[in-house]
Amino acid sequence: MTNTPPLLVAVVMGSKSDWETMQHCVETLKILNISYHCQVVSAHRTPDLLFSFAEQARDKGFEIIIAGAGGAAHLPGMLAAKCSLPILGVPIQSRTLNGLDSLLSIVQMPSGIPVGTLAIGKAGAVNAALLAASILGNKYPDVLRQLEQYRQQQTDNVLQATSVENSF
Amino acid sequence: MTNTPPLLVAVVMGSKSDWETMQHCVETLKILNISYHCQVVSAHRTPDLLFSFAEQARDKGFEIIIAGAGGAAHLPGMLAAKCSLPILGVPIQSRTLNGLDSLLSIVQMPSGIPVGTLAIGKAGAVNAALLAASILGNKYPDVLRQLEQYRQQQTDNVLQATSVENSF
Amino acid sequence: MTNTPPLLVAVVMGSKSDWETMQHCVETLKILNISYHCQVVSAHRTPDLLFSFAEQARDKGFEIIIAGAGGAAHLPGMLAAKCSLPILGVPIQSRTLNGLDSLLSIVQMPSGIPVGTLAIGKAGAVNAALLAASILGNKYPDVLRQLEQYRQQQTDNVLQATSVENSF
Amino acid sequence: MTNTPPLLVAVVMGSKSDWETMQHCVETLKILNISYHCQVVSAHRTPDLLFSFAEQARDKGFEIIIAGAGGAAHLPGMLAAKCSLPILGVPIQSRTLNGLDSLLSIVQMPSGIPVGTLAIGKAGAVNAALLAASILGNKYPDVLRQLEQYRQQQTDNVLQATSVENSF
Amino acid sequence: MTNTPPLLVAVVMGSKSDWETMQHCVETLKILNISYHCQVVSAHRTPDLLFSFAEQARDKGFEIIIAGAGGAAHLPGMLAAKCSLPILGVPIQSRTLNGLDSLLSIVQMPSGIPVGTLAIGKAGAVNAALLAASILGNKYPDVLRQLEQYRQQQTDNVLQATSVENSF
Amino acid sequence: MTNTPPLLVAVVMGSKSDWETMQHCVETLKILNISYHCQVVSAHRTPDLLFSFAEQARDKGFEIIIAGAGGAAHLPGMLAAKCSLPILGVPIQSRTLNGLDSLLSIVQMPSGIPVGTLAIGKAGAVNAALLAASILGNKYPDVLRQLEQYRQQQTDNVLQATSVENSF
Amino acid sequence: MTNTPPLLVAVVMGSKSDWETMQHCVETLKILNISYHCQVVSAHRTPDLLFSFAEQARDKGFEIIIAGAGGAAHLPGMLAAKCSLPILGVPIQSRTLNGLDSLLSIVQMPSGIPVGTLAIGKAGAVNAALLAASILGNKYPDVLRQLEQYRQQQTDNVLQATSVENSF
Amino acid sequence: MTNTPPLLVAVVMGSKSDWETMQHCVETLKILNISYHCQVVSAHRTPDLLFSFAEQARDKGFEIIIAGAGGAAHLPGMLAAKCSLPILGVPIQSRTLNGLDSLLSIVQMPSGIPVGTLAIGKAGAVNAALLAASILGNKYPDVLRQLEQYRQQQTDNVLQATSVENSF
Repeated sequence: MTNTPPLLVAVVMGSKSDWETMQHCVETLKILNISYHCQVVSAHRTPDLLFSFAEQARDKGFEIIIAGAGGAAHLPGMLAAKCSLPILGVPIQSRTLNGLDSLLSIVQMPSGIPVGTLAIGKAGAVNAALLAASILGNKYPDVLRQLEQYRQQQTDNVLQATSVENSF
Repeated sequence: MTNTPPLLVAVVMGSKSDWETMQHCVETLKILNISYHCQVVSAHRTPDLLFSFAEQARDKGFEIIIAGAGGAAHLPGMLAAKCSLPILGVPIQSRTLNGLDSLLSIVQMPSGIPVGTLAIGKAGAVNAALLAASILGNKYPDVLRQLEQYRQQQTDNVLQATSVENSF
Repeated sequence: MTNTPPLLVAVVMGSKSDWETMQHCVETLKILNISYHCQVVSAHRTPDLLFSFAEQARDKGFEIIIAGAGGAAHLPGMLAAKCSLPILGVPIQSRTLNGLDSLLSIVQMPSGIPVGTLAIGKAGAVNAALLAASILGNKYPDVLRQLEQYRQQQTDNVLQATSVENSF
Repeated sequence: MTNTPPLLVAVVMGSKSDWETMQHCVETLKILNISYHCQVVSAHRTPDLLFSFAEQARDKGFEIIIAGAGGAAHLPGMLAAKCSLPILGVPIQSRTLNGLDSLLSIVQMPSGIPVGTLAIGKAGAVNAALLAASILGNKYPDVLRQLEQYRQQQTDNVLQATSVENSF
Repeated sequence: MTNTPPLLVAVVMGSKSDWETMQHCVETLKILNISYHCQVVSAHRTPDLLFSFAEQARDKGFEIIIAGAGGAAHLPGMLAAKCSLPILGVPIQSRTLNGLDSLLSIVQMPSGIPVGTLAIGKAGAVNAALLAASILGNKYPDVLRQLEQYRQQQTDNVLQATSVENSF
Repeated sequence: MTNTPPLLVAVVMGSKSDWETMQHCVETLKILNISYHCQVVSAHRTPDLLFSFAEQARDKGFEIIIAGAGGAAHLPGMLAAKCSLPILGVPIQSRTLNGLDSLLSIVQMPSGIPVGTLAIGKAGAVNAALLAASILGNKYPDVLRQLEQYRQQQTDNVLQATSVENSF
Repeated sequence: MTNTPPLLVAVVMGSKSDWETMQHCVETLKILNISYHCQVVSAHRTPDLLFSFAEQARDKGFEIIIAGAGGAAHLPGMLAAKCSLPILGVPIQSRTLNGLDSLLSIVQMPSGIPVGTLAIGKAGAVNAALLAASILGNKYPDVLRQLEQYRQQQTDNVLQATSVENSF
Repeated sequence: MTNTPPLLVAVVMGSKSDWETMQHCVETLKILNISYHCQVVSAHRTPDLLFSFAEQARDKGFEIIIAGAGGAAHLPGMLAAKCSLPILGVPIQSRTLNGLDSLLSIVQMPSGIPVGTLAIGKAGAVNAALLAASILGNKYPDVLRQLEQYRQQQTDNVLQATSVENSF
């Protein structure tokens, strides 16, 4: 692991209950051998922590922040407001509106402050890790190699098992 | 106006373009003779201003903050996260999704940090002022009297003109 | 409890089945040591009760009415039509449309009669209590102290347990 | 007009601005030679008028009430709550959500109190008159005859002009 | 039952699986002592039956047709196209879109052919029976008396049990 | 035109006002040199015409029916119920709900009776013609040749003008 | 089976998990005695397979491609982009947005490249097979005969069991 | 410009008509002094161009691809399927569904192939450029400096003009 610098990605989420979704992000980062830091930061219950986290993020060496949040999800957008690192947002599936509220709260950022938004729920959590790898891959050849292996593997998995039943 | 303390209500909005909607809030406060302060505070472009504004709001004597914002509207919720004053949110009608994104971003706050949300657009802006009057009316008899006059007037206006055409 | 006046908040709901959601409002009021009255008032099945309840609410000493209702939810808006107290509306999650109908029926009030609307379901029920505390806190220092303790506690709870797993 | 009793239908609407839509209802009643009464009754700004109107409706001889309202549209449902006459609801197209809020606020009535809901906007206004004619037609042969003429006419209008261009 | 004429209401549904919802309509008609006929008529799988049913409905003595259907629900609208009796539509909750497709397919009828639409699912099924009673009540005093008893009973049920817990 | 048999496609629409959209279908059929018949057939105002049209369609030699309709759009589905020819549905953009009602009313057909649904509005009208060509192309080599020319042309049009500005 | 040519229909799906839905398509093709080929082709994980599959489809003798996909469902549209055969799309019900995302991703194709879209989920899978039969039926009399038997059977099934309970 | 390498970003769009939106992306890249290449690539009308573009993108030196598309928007997702560079998607506001179709078609990518999605329309186009700058800023100090100047400028613009009217 000497080629890959440590803790390139910060994975944060608005609540412990988001871990059920965001663990798939962390698992994917592990598969890709990308170092990360992971914690809860609540935009609404710990706004000061959100600000200090965002202010120190670049100095701590993070190159990307992945933020998962649900409902009126303000964590990704407020991180983006406070920090010029790339912020990737994962809309957590909410109990009442299936994550449509989470999605719109994250993706519909006004001109000036972007959040790169992924799909609602588990697919978005996995894909945030893969997009992070893709971004890091431009700078770190090791990460790119890992990503391309991962992608090749997933293509091979489909190709080796395209039958779902026998034709008659 | 000696009975009513000055600047009871802060009216903030995420962008100058929200003034087209939020002016109806301010006009209603004027009609109700409620003192107010009004300014732009952008959650995304001026997050530090948002925090200092929220931290000082109670000391400045504001008793209610009305916040208008559109799209991924984080201003009302982040004010609520930083400040224990009642926060009233006005979803601004957005260009693409008609304000559904604004509404969901404001109203779907997680357990713990509330925003009292009004209707999308002009009706919400007027009603934020009226709800503020209603809240202040519990403490300030003058405001309650003004509110009840306003409501009586609007009832009378309907009652004096219920005909839309003549029956045949 | 000598400093806090009794029965400051009325919590009403359209049907006994709404209690599953609204109990979270009442529990939060209890934690905050805010006195309340709680009952069923159905806008559609007991409209006269709704009117007499609204007409007497101020005289009974209530300072805030919290109303939970689902589907074509008319209870909060009709209370607001009949009573100049602040009305807070909680959209109950409906069976078919997940509470989107409840939300729109409550929040989209026309200019002139406001309802401060909270999130759909349990989060909205808790937050209605917290917004009530916030409103009462401007007049009753005890309530404000309780609210700020509650908020500090919830912040501390997050801060004391931000780890969801160990970095590798 | 001696065979048709006078003022069988009451057409009410929440605001003067709804007349733009509801005039199409009244015009259709006129074509069908059905007597009607038409006025503004605002559920939110004139709730007492709403109640007295509903209480007296049957005694005044109305057999059907058609109610048009927009946004958080409570007029049809509250009339139904106060009055056992058939209530037909017309969702007015709202400025922000295109009448989806009006539709859901009217149609999603809870078990026990029905509103027969028509389409959003002008089509719903015309159809409320036609559904009223259909209801009255069961009791008043003259109305049924008028309705069937109207329907035959509209069928003939289509049949006499089915070409939109020439085939080549 | 000598005062109430037999089989005043036809209750039809697009599929046997709709019976789970529509039984609540039939049960309510029974409580109200309204005679009815009930059967499956599929707009899509038995279009000819739909047409003959609609053509004969008035001659068979039906005064109202209640039609339940889900998904792209064409049964109520096509009955209305073929028959000048009042048609009441009940949107069945669909598997994928929760009945929003059923609702829009039924309620958004074009100008000229009305369907009085009730709520999605069980509430709509009950309310279709109540609206039918309300319509019949204008002509049959017995039905009106039954309806008013039903409504009084449901009001009393709420009034006799408004407590959901004890105030503290 | 001796190779292409006449009147292979019937283009019907629910109202003259749908011609604004459906003309793009007819224009595309003309470009593809596919013979067609075009007329208004209203499911709701001329249900008998709808039935006789559907019953005679195969005998008249039509191989495909393209049906455009808006709102509670029943025309395509009822044609499919009465006729085993392939039915292609074009949801017309409705005034109030932007065609979402038209789309769901057409596409959400229950198991057993299919409608091949195209996009809302003009794009759907053009594409219905192209899908018809694609279907006919399996049987009529001339149609396939025309379709492939059309597609090559549209590809070439994009390829010959991919620049939108000059890089700097 | 000598009259029906082999492998007329290709059934493809974006993932093995789509088989749960798409098996209903294959079962229906079997009932209709239509030969088919069935496999997984992932637009996103095996884009090259998608292209080669589309390029060879006509030469392999397929006359119709049925493609099921969920979420941001690109498989049907990209097959249509690469191949002038008729493409029928089945939106798979997605975990988070109930298939609304799948539906819009498939049906809202731009002018020029059509996908004939069926209902979300199982009904759409069955109907894709029936629409394929309808298309093939124009060319292959055997398929048409099978289709008409299938349709007659399903009509008879409804007609033989229209009672859901006994009238009283 | 000697420190910044040329043509770091490729900006592609599905149609010339998307330029109205995507020009705001290009303008922002110019302000940030980021070199770019810009052209039309239609997923549906030029699928082979899409594939060759994606296959050559990394070799041409692009480090990020920004793709704008509307309706059933497949361009960003198919680029992501063919290329391991970071892909940023801009949903173009569509005529009928306001860009909700574009948004869902782009953001709801399945697990394995990510697209970082921005807001619908102009705001998304500007923000795609800013997110690209943020990504490049991790590798190119010049780009980071330009980005931080841009962000400081936009903050200053708000701070220097927070008044929307004078308090009274």
